[in-house]
Amino acid sequence: MTSIADRSTPKSGYQVVGSRPIRHDGVDKVTGRARYGADVRLPGVLHGKILRSPHGHARIVSIDVSKALALPEVKAVVTSADVPIVKDTLIDFGETMGNARLLAENCLARDKALYRGHAVAAVAAANPHVAEEALALIEVEYEPLPVVLNALDAMREDAPLLHEAMTTRSIAERWTRGDDTGVHSNVASRLRFSRGDLDEGFAAADVVVEREFTTSTVHQGYIEPHTSTASWAPDGHVTIWTSTQGAFGIRGQAAAILGVPEGRVTVIPMEIGGGFGAKTYVHVDPVAALLSRASGQPVQVTMSRTEVFEASGPTSATTIRARIGATNEGVITAAQLWMAYEAGAFPGSPVGAGAMTALAPYDIEHLLVDGYDVVVNKPKVGAYRAPGSPQAAFAVESVIDEIAEAIGMERMEFRLRNATREGDRMPSGMAFPSIGCVEVEEAIVNHPHYSAPIEGPNRGRGVAMGFWFNGGNQSSATVAVNADGTIALVTGSVDIGGMRAALAMQAAETLGLRAEDVQPSVGDTDSVGWTGVTGGSRTAFSTGIAVITAAEDVKLQMTQRAAILLEAEPDDVTFADGAFSAGGGKSISWKEVAGQQLRTGGPISASASSNPTRVGPAFAGNIVDVEVDPETGKVDILRFTVIQDAGTAIHPSYVEGQMQGGAVQGIGWALNEEYVWREDGSMANASFLDYRMPTSLDLPMIDTQIVEVPNPGHPYGIRGVGEVPIVPPMAAIANAVHDATGVRMTHLPMSPANVLEALGAVPPEG
Amino acid sequence: MTSIADRSTPKSGYQVVGSRPIRHDGVDKVTGRARYGADVRLPGVLHGKILRSPHGHARIVSIDVSKALALPEVKAVVTSADVPIVKDTLIDFGETMGNARLLAENCLARDKALYRGHAVAAVAAANPHVAEEALALIEVEYEPLPVVLNALDAMREDAPLLHEAMTTRSIAERWTRGDDTGVHSNVASRLRFSRGDLDEGFAAADVVVEREFTTSTVHQGYIEPHTSTASWAPDGHVTIWTSTQGAFGIRGQAAAILGVPEGRVTVIPMEIGGGFGAKTYVHVDPVAALLSRASGQPVQVTMSRTEVFEASGPTSATTIRARIGATNEGVITAAQLWMAYEAGAFPGSPVGAGAMTALAPYDIEHLLVDGYDVVVNKPKVGAYRAPGSPQAAFAVESVIDEIAEAIGMERMEFRLRNATREGDRMPSGMAFPSIGCVEVEEAIVNHPHYSAPIEGPNRGRGVAMGFWFNGGNQSSATVAVNADGTIALVTGSVDIGGMRAALAMQAAETLGLRAEDVQPSVGDTDSVGWTGVTGGSRTAFSTGIAVITAAEDVKLQMTQRAAILLEAEPDDVTFADGAFSAGGGKSISWKEVAGQQLRTGGPISASASSNPTRVGPAFAGNIVDVEVDPETGKVDILRFTVIQDAGTAIHPSYVEGQMQGGAVQGIGWALNEEYVWREDGSMANASFLDYRMPTSLDLPMIDTQIVEVPNPGHPYGIRGVGEVPIVPPMAAIANAVHDATGVRMTHLPMSPANVLEALGAVPPEG
Repeated sequence: MTSIADRSTPKSGYQVVGSRPIRHDGVDKVTGRARYGADVRLPGVLHGKILRSPHGHARIVSIDVSKALALPEVKAVVTSADVPIVKDTLIDFGETMGNARLLAENCLARDKALYRGHAVAAVAAANPHVAEEALALIEVEYEPLPVVLNALDAMREDAPLLHEAMTTRSIAERWTRGDDTGVHSNVASRLRFSRGDLDEGFAAADVVVEREFTTSTVHQGYIEPHTSTASWAPDGHVTIWTSTQGAFGIRGQAAAILGVPEGRVTVIPMEIGGGFGAKTYVHVDPVAALLSRASGQPVQVTMSRTEVFEASGPTSATTIRARIGATNEGVITAAQLWMAYEAGAFPGSPVGAGAMTALAPYDIEHLLVDGYDVVVNKPKVGAYRAPGSPQAAFAVESVIDEIAEAIGMERMEFRLRNATREGDRMPSGMAFPSIGCVEVEEAIVNHPHYSAPIEGPNRGRGVAMGFWFNGGNQSSATVAVNADGTIALVTGSVDIGGMRAALAMQAAETLGLRAEDVQPSVGDTDSVGWTGVTGGSRTAFSTGIAVITAAEDVKLQMTQRAAILLEAEPDDVTFADGAFSAGGGKSISWKEVAGQQLRTGGPISASASSNPTRVGPAFAGNIVDVEVDPETGKVDILRFTVIQDAGTAIHPSYVEGQMQGGAVQGIGWALNEEYVWREDGSMANASFLDYRMPTSLDLPMIDTQIVEVPNPGHPYGIRGVGEVPIVPPMAAIANAVHDATGVRMTHLPMSPANVLEALGAVPPEG
Repeated sequence: MTSIADRSTPKSGYQVVGSRPIRHDGVDKVTGRARYGADVRLPGVLHGKILRSPHGHARIVSIDVSKALALPEVKAVVTSADVPIVKDTLIDFGETMGNARLLAENCLARDKALYRGHAVAAVAAANPHVAEEALALIEVEYEPLPVVLNALDAMREDAPLLHEAMTTRSIAERWTRGDDTGVHSNVASRLRFSRGDLDEGFAAADVVVEREFTTSTVHQGYIEPHTSTASWAPDGHVTIWTSTQGAFGIRGQAAAILGVPEGRVTVIPMEIGGGFGAKTYVHVDPVAALLSRASGQPVQVTMSRTEVFEASGPTSATTIRARIGATNEGVITAAQLWMAYEAGAFPGSPVGAGAMTALAPYDIEHLLVDGYDVVVNKPKVGAYRAPGSPQAAFAVESVIDEIAEAIGMERMEFRLRNATREGDRMPSGMAFPSIGCVEVEEAIVNHPHYSAPIEGPNRGRGVAMGFWFNGGNQSSATVAVNADGTIALVTGSVDIGGMRAALAMQAAETLGLRAEDVQPSVGDTDSVGWTGVTGGSRTAFSTGIAVITAAEDVKLQMTQRAAILLEAEPDDVTFADGAFSAGGGKSISWKEVAGQQLRTGGPISASASSNPTRVGPAFAGNIVDVEVDPETGKVDILRFTVIQDAGTAIHPSYVEGQMQGGAVQGIGWALNEEYVWREDGSMANASFLDYRMPTSLDLPMIDTQIVEVPNPGHPYGIRGVGEVPIVPPMAAIANAVHDATGVRMTHLPMSPANVLEALGAVPPEG
């Protein structure tokens, strides 16, 4: 894709933006020098292990830890009794806000275990094997309760309630606030977007398609398990080294749960081995901290892979009913969505995001979207890359294809006929700013892949669109000038997908430097101003603005110093091509001014923060060719192209990497990945051997084409790029399977067994 | 001294300044959590060991490392051949500037070994014992040269030259620049301060006293040896974890020596186990880095105690001739000093500082000070607490006492008669700003110790004054506001004597917070703007100004946010007692505004630097009672009082700690400490068993009295406090010994053998 020669070629009009320098953290990461969460080695550190509920739903009658505590080498045992009573307060929670009390109960169950794997107690010992042995000595008396594992079951009036006191509104603290029904229910929140007159819209349609789609629980599948090392000092200061996407969020959550003022908690973000949204809230951090307080020693807790599956935050299984109508001329007249998203054991599914995004590629006059956030006896869901949107796009984009076929219109022509543009309203009612929906769709049509012949039996091609609104949020950055003219850049943004490079390049562009002249580092919570999570596709955009603002401040200071050295007025000094110039041909280089900073007024540095209001939403589309084996039901991906509006691609290689990564995760979700639940709420496939993620052997090269419709809300035009590429793949593949077989798949994953069943064959014995 | 009850009592007019909160790093340090240089543990780290010259002076004919390299497990061997040719460039060097080429040659000898212990080669191996074994396999052919171990010998025309190319001016790069004599010599630089007419001055005197004083080489005696861990990444980025007083200085020096741009070197300062000035320039850092480059693995080099003595930077042995004249009315009419300071093997003794400070307590019309910086075959001297001043004060304050006695005037009356005041000229010619010389002297006279009876035979009392001009230099700081209203404070200043607390308190005072509401941390060179060394008694003062400036910026931002929340104009909002108020009784707390920062414009932080011009010099005085054992010559300290002008004591306990620590080091220097040199240039007592430092059993409680004459050059009136307390003790003790015995001691240390000899007795067999 990218040749070495491309590396030095910036985008037209830029010096750095659009080039492809080697990432600053690259050498550390490929040589093993980079330090991840589990690399933290403190003197006297203990190993923490967590006892987890064997029941999918049970009242905890009693916990007796005395035998475990009596075991030699065991230094501490904690349960929810060691957690302060946490109030229902809203705290920062990654891309949104969360409820501290519920988060605490997810970390250590209080009255009930709400899912198989729910943490019940924890042990710290000098030896991890002793800690495991001690877990077996903890005596928990459970009173098993009926298990509910599906949103539709959980919504029934006679369903067993997970949270007896919960009414639909009381904890509706996420994307939108529904009305309080006053009804005690497993529906944590409901929302409705309504526009126009649905009956009138459907009456105007020549064709109406309605289908129900279901998707399974899937996991982000990051390689690095959750791991946290905590040290609770005798003076009450808590230090946490952790694998997270956002140190400040973890700090806020840990402080609330532990009952410690935020300023008394230091969170040090280590390098992260994948997060995809799920490493934004606490799992083991408060447990490690409580064990440290109880033992007086630092404690490290690292999840096993099974614990990651059973007790971290996968994304929602969903049931979505989509009903869309269109005229024979190809105008969509009305759309209705009914969406039930499983939240897992605690409120907080991404149904709101699904509701906001699913219909976004289309300008529709009459629509009604109903969403339900439903608790079930599964692990509390976490964010997963464009949370909630892929499931919804799977439903909508399948129906869109079906309508196009019904009215006999080419599928991209149909999409372009209804494509959303700047000024059109989003499903939530807000107006779209500058967007690239049409540009992406036109790029699909014009891409050689779209018009390439597809030959052979059982082969087909699919397309689909995806939308993600992208996050803004706030960030901080500090820039300091070195004597050699290079700069040090500190941000609070954890580096997941090349963020150091993307931020360093923006600083370099602003200051006329090369990317390698910037030394970017990730600060801990004591080192830099508050910074939101690396997530929501917001970081290159929003932290970028903080970086540019701090760099502009530094440039101003440098200009003032240059004026001193040039014996000119600051207003008469201009900066271009690495040099400051005043009248009369007087000029001095950036590097010289930097070298003189201590003699012209002192060290130069600046801090700044971002508070962006003009986020650039992102559209992406896929073209995919598949072959379906009619004997096994196996779907092979023959060719896959991702087309995406990046606004401006700061570092095209890392944008392409995000596009490819999102596609691959989408392919796994589409074809193979799923939690296989037993009736008792246990997971039958809680290992990477049995939870089938795609490998390189399953995939073709993922081709990419970046479309650039600059976001006017960012100095260099950045839109977020990390999330939207996971949105279209499931629908695109389903549409391709339909093209290959004539069969409409309405359930994910489209695994061999499910495809074979849909084809009408008998699934092989499993 | 300090009761717990004192802790909450700030100085009048202040909220925080003058109170005694527990230092922020206290718990970490007493519980062992704090991480020092040798605590750095990197995966795959190798152990580096250094081969040192067995000769005091020798030409290096050849080095054959082949046998060492052939040893299994040896990963790298380096010599000066691996050091790039370093140009004669001035680089930051702690409190002053240094020559990079000479610094490089001190780290690894190039053509000649200039002192016993001079590094010649280094080995890295996975096992420290193998590394030591390999050292023995390195074959170095030396051509021994004559050794010169004394400044007077080295100044002789026929003395062997250490640096054949050196003329007196060519490397005079320190406190002042002498004229280039063009003469090749061991005198690296010379300086002269001259004022008035010396002949006229002495002619006006009724009494003239002239004496020659000598002092021995002494070491700072920090508990933690020099240690450095370096990792040279394949992309050329060098990371160094080290025990230093100033990370930015080490970065600049290492970059220059290694031939790497400054921006490609990251220096991470660990906690420091004592420095006292000596941990400001590189010893093992470049060696560890070169071994890492050669081996491809991180390398840790830690000196043994013997290496610290033989090859780090002790302070100068000196010869000082002092001639002072006064009238019978007690007016000093003239003073002349001739000072030769040993620089060790490379230029850079603190003779300039000695020349600037020795006569500073006295307003003298006619004076002449000649200073010589002389290289000898000893380790290159480093800074040691008020470098150069204690030796000079020993000479001057002894003579001052002798003159007072000769004219029959009470010794403090004589000093006060000639005491220097604001506007008087320093020996260098500059005018004194606001100073507390008179105030300290009056406090001595009024102190109960001064008028207490002293009884018993062989007992006596001495007094002496000391001066230190204090450093300014530049620093950077970043302040960020947490949602709970606490703040995070980052500075580049290594914490030696409670600096986190002293800086946090200044931030707290500025923002109306408590000291414990500030989380101070020490940034590495990538984390904060350039900051000079923690040394020169400059840090609480100059970094304090950076902290206050950043905090004022934060206060301004907070005021603007408060105005938004109060719906008022920012100009109408005032801040007092932790709350922002506008007209009409509207008010909102600091904490509330902090909690709303993300909703009123984004995270709040600010960076600032200092460039102070109005440094506050410091005076201190001692009162000491001694008893001299006429049979053994042993001097016991019976009572010791330190009186010192601190400007404003931000944290009185840590000021008192500095006063006590300086006194104790001065007592050790006065009575016992010395390098015992053999004729071949080797040190006979290179261990703490044989190099006699004072222990708690040797010392009484050191009483302290802080005098406060605020420095108008700092918002809260700070003067530096760390260095000046080491200046007066030697002279005060010598004066007390004279008072007890009638014998004038002119050589340090006043060890039992030396005292016995001075008393006219035969020293015992040693």
